[in-house]
Amino acid sequence: MQIRSEETRNHLLEAALRRFARDGYNSASVDQICSDAGLSKGAFYHHFPSKQAVFMALLDGWLTTVEAALESARRPTVPATLIGMADMLPDILVATDGNLPMFLEFWLQASRDETIWAETIAPYQRFQQFFAILVQQGIDEGSFKPVDTLAAAQMIVSLAVGMFLQALLAPDSMDWRTTARENMKILMEGLAK
Amino acid sequence: MQIRSEETRNHLLEAALRRFARDGYNSASVDQICSDAGLSKGAFYHHFPSKQAVFMALLDGWLTTVEAALESARRPTVPATLIGMADMLPDILVATDGNLPMFLEFWLQASRDETIWAETIAPYQRFQQFFAILVQQGIDEGSFKPVDTLAAAQMIVSLAVGMFLQALLAPDSMDWRTTARENMKILMEGLAK
Repeated sequence: MQIRSEETRNHLLEAALRRFARDGYNSASVDQICSDAGLSKGAFYHHFPSKQAVFMALLDGWLTTVEAALESARRPTVPATLIGMADMLPDILVATDGNLPMFLEFWLQASRDETIWAETIAPYQRFQQFFAILVQQGIDEGSFKPVDTLAAAQMIVSLAVGMFLQALLAPDSMDWRTTARENMKILMEGLAK
Repeated sequence: MQIRSEETRNHLLEAALRRFARDGYNSASVDQICSDAGLSKGAFYHHFPSKQAVFMALLDGWLTTVEAALESARRPTVPATLIGMADMLPDILVATDGNLPMFLEFWLQASRDETIWAETIAPYQRFQQFFAILVQQGIDEGSFKPVDTLAAAQMIVSLAVGMFLQALLAPDSMDWRTTARENMKILMEGLAK
């Protein structure tokens, strides 16, 4: 029963992802998602209270994937770790391919709806915290000078968000793997002791 | 007559901007924009062939404002110029306040429509070129080491885009003026000779 239930949930998530990517967040309907998944509305509402909830679940799943990828990039020193993380940008991009419209539409929704706002900006704060700890480790191990860790972390997040958005908008305009690595090197020389 | 015509165009641009910000790009109609501006559809179509054209005109106006602001930040050395540009982020943010939904919706539109795609990504390339020239000047004057100017320019644009998006999404989460300045300093230490 447990497994059946999780399978159902995954079917719904996959159907919703395809539908959001194709029709957009606003035009996609719960009816259509259920029909695509071959499941009843009862099954849908058993797992998700609303279309918004299924979107938040997709966002959460994507963030968990990104975080797991970042964790797997840990190396003995913080500079090596950060270069390893920069090298992952292309893979994260591939995992996101075709979903830019969905993100844009969701941010749009969030920018107009106070209730989903806090949930939408929470991931940035989570990533900022993640990188603040990493920069502090870099200071502690003697790789970085004693910078404001939160400011440095915010810079890493801004750079990642900006590169990510540009790479999604214009995937063929740069070699994004090389670009991410070069940018990370410049950033680290700025932080270096 | 010339002045009347420009006034009419400006009225239409202002009405469209308010309407896009309030209803979104898709829901806003030419009828509504004309009614808000107190002008006929004939007047509208005399100035703009389509709703898309009025949006592109607004985008172009915003970019021209940003470029003029950046030009005004020129100082005797490139590092001083870049710090001056970072200091302008809050003013650019104020000029954009309330327009984030419109940008998101337009990018969304662009991501689904080949014809407006090229026009939408052109500004990034313009800014990248602008900063590539500036970085080259920094190398020539002896402030920066001989880096890949296009990569460094791309980094400045990514950082600006990311910070811009974060500042629009969460204006109160950081002191953005200090943050922009600190980030620019870290970046420049990474480029410094």
